[in-house]
Amino acid sequence: MTESTYHTLDAAGIRSLISGVPVVAGRLGGTPDLWRVHEVSDGNLNNVFIVGGPTGEVCLKQSLPYVRVDPTWKMPLDRTYFESEWLRAVRPLVGGLTTEFLHFDPVLHVLIVESLSGHTVYRSALMRGVDWPDVAPRIGTFIAHATFGTSLLALPFEDVFAARRDFARNVTLTRITLDLVFDHPYRDHPRNNWDEPELTPLVLDIRSSAPTLLAVENLRRRFLSQPQALLHGDLHTGSIMTKADDTRVIDGEFALYGPIGFDCGMFVGNLVLHYFATPDATARSATIRDIAAFWTCFHAQFLTLWNRDEAPPAGTLRPLAYGPAAHTAQLAFLEEIEADTMGFAAAEVIRRIIGYAHTADFDVIADPRQRGACRAGALAFAYYILDHTAQIRTLGDFLRHLGEQEKVGL
Amino acid sequence: MTESTYHTLDAAGIRSLISGVPVVAGRLGGTPDLWRVHEVSDGNLNNVFIVGGPTGEVCLKQSLPYVRVDPTWKMPLDRTYFESEWLRAVRPLVGGLTTEFLHFDPVLHVLIVESLSGHTVYRSALMRGVDWPDVAPRIGTFIAHATFGTSLLALPFEDVFAARRDFARNVTLTRITLDLVFDHPYRDHPRNNWDEPELTPLVLDIRSSAPTLLAVENLRRRFLSQPQALLHGDLHTGSIMTKADDTRVIDGEFALYGPIGFDCGMFVGNLVLHYFATPDATARSATIRDIAAFWTCFHAQFLTLWNRDEAPPAGTLRPLAYGPAAHTAQLAFLEEIEADTMGFAAAEVIRRIIGYAHTADFDVIADPRQRGACRAGALAFAYYILDHTAQIRTLGDFLRHLGEQEKVGL
Repeated sequence: MTESTYHTLDAAGIRSLISGVPVVAGRLGGTPDLWRVHEVSDGNLNNVFIVGGPTGEVCLKQSLPYVRVDPTWKMPLDRTYFESEWLRAVRPLVGGLTTEFLHFDPVLHVLIVESLSGHTVYRSALMRGVDWPDVAPRIGTFIAHATFGTSLLALPFEDVFAARRDFARNVTLTRITLDLVFDHPYRDHPRNNWDEPELTPLVLDIRSSAPTLLAVENLRRRFLSQPQALLHGDLHTGSIMTKADDTRVIDGEFALYGPIGFDCGMFVGNLVLHYFATPDATARSATIRDIAAFWTCFHAQFLTLWNRDEAPPAGTLRPLAYGPAAHTAQLAFLEEIEADTMGFAAAEVIRRIIGYAHTADFDVIADPRQRGACRAGALAFAYYILDHTAQIRTLGDFLRHLGEQEKVGL
Repeated sequence: MTESTYHTLDAAGIRSLISGVPVVAGRLGGTPDLWRVHEVSDGNLNNVFIVGGPTGEVCLKQSLPYVRVDPTWKMPLDRTYFESEWLRAVRPLVGGLTTEFLHFDPVLHVLIVESLSGHTVYRSALMRGVDWPDVAPRIGTFIAHATFGTSLLALPFEDVFAARRDFARNVTLTRITLDLVFDHPYRDHPRNNWDEPELTPLVLDIRSSAPTLLAVENLRRRFLSQPQALLHGDLHTGSIMTKADDTRVIDGEFALYGPIGFDCGMFVGNLVLHYFATPDATARSATIRDIAAFWTCFHAQFLTLWNRDEAPPAGTLRPLAYGPAAHTAQLAFLEEIEADTMGFAAAEVIRRIIGYAHTADFDVIADPRQRGACRAGALAFAYYILDHTAQIRTLGDFLRHLGEQEKVGL
């Protein structure tokens, strides 16, 4: 049985825990001695296990009192709580686009969810050169439903305020985002790192560009002061498990109320990183297609939810005005999300190249000089976007500028 | 002694309560039988008493389980809690511009504060034709210090998130603002009321003006989705006690995290109401002077706090960029507050004329036809402001248009 205090679970501890949770034990089938436990920890923060039994499989995630990849970095245990709250909030809105919630243990800080079968991490699939054109629009659908459904457009403000209160406690992980995305890359900080000395002049340019720094200040302020909807908070291509016909957003532990464009921007930013890590022109075109399809799908689905004419929506922000003017106002709201998306995407690219937490995308390039040139290309692109916030008004402009980068770098 | 459950206090109950609170009993001096208790309830919601003893006086406020002026309108008791939390948060920031907090009783929902001596309600002073030019700039100072000091500019985001969580529980009074300010006036609702039939065509115009309704939608969304700072939440001229040389903001029970321009707009809106209720050209000019002085003072003080070069500020939103560009960004932030101020002021004027809760300003006009004409002037002005949100960009434009109203109405 579960002990009454926190301890890090091993295979025996996991069997003991699950044997006390009928909904999970029933799914595995058989007796605990038949359950296979495999550690599959891959992210930066937590221990993750796949547990299989005669009739089924589950995924178990336990918070550690430190960062998994850096045990000297201490951290409170509550992150699986927020992931569990996020999952319970968004699963009814997005159906099969995330995993099924099965159990949360508040003492052991363990979350148990449906195990995925045959799925691969989207980033890994992209790195292998797989082209699955349905994944990006599915993420557009996911964000549209998860954010609309948790916003003041869909809910009475009392419900939104209660949810904001819950997720406003997720300060440890929000602090990580704040520091790693919006602060450290823009000044000297020991957590920053980049291998290629040729990036250094570009980094110094970025840090002395007033328009760029003001754009980052604006994004930082919006991240903390625009609680439009419940966000995933870390929606990069490593937070997506997929196969050709089924896509799941996982790992919602960074969840917070924030600007909808933050989730859109994290996703787009990681596709931009993949773009610059891809030497192949066809694959680069596919990435531009994916970003466009993502945005088109998000935009269309969000508007559809807003304008559905079933029962009048319960949301506090139900329209006062109707007709063409109201539609114009809806488009203006989506333009604000579009501007946020581009800004947050650029900030994500910068921090993934010169900040603490890099991504694996560029590992596909064996030659260090070529790898450095690709990283420099990505960094220069993101710098250009932030430096020209006033000029690059639409994702179309953003993608045109991205497309022109095919001619350089490689 | 205090009983362990809530009950409405009478004079004996008040003496009993205070005798158990040394800091208050000590201020009154003497023994409970010497304490005089006067009921001075005046606002819409609560019972208020002045309690005097041989050496001092205090003000005691108790929540009722209903709206004081409408006992059929049931209401939870927690509003004195939020007023108490607000007072504890802002008093250290604004010093003598609010009252001293003395005691809060969470069972009886009683707040005890310093009693004011010789102060009058600012709205009443204005109605008597008193001209105290220092009051409006003091309110500018109050809002600048109270909002800057509770914002992400001054505090680590963890502290701001904790405060937002606390005040996000103030849903009962936030719901009242939402309904009475941003919803009911713009549709048929039994709580709306206006005596003058000549206002009705104007009301119907407002309700069919798409730009106006979209402006109100935008203000409503910003009210609920821009938690920039801790607001008073109901900063009309009746929430200000003043004499020529001392001004106090009281009654913070509507406190919430919201857009700074909401507090500015409530205050400006109530000066606009006074303007239209004033037949005298000199008094009208004084009101325009007061609005301008309020804004100038708020603007200057806010910038001073932002740029003070003592110890580097602890605020999460400390600058990344310095120099002229940073100053431009500060001014842009204040322009956003300026736009909010004008919009919220107009919304306040409209709801005070055609909504549930009117103000006394127009009672100084004895002739009903003249009173109707003055109310129509105010309503038409507010309608014009909301209908021309895109054109009226500065408070200067707003005041020029207001000044032109001297020629009409009376």
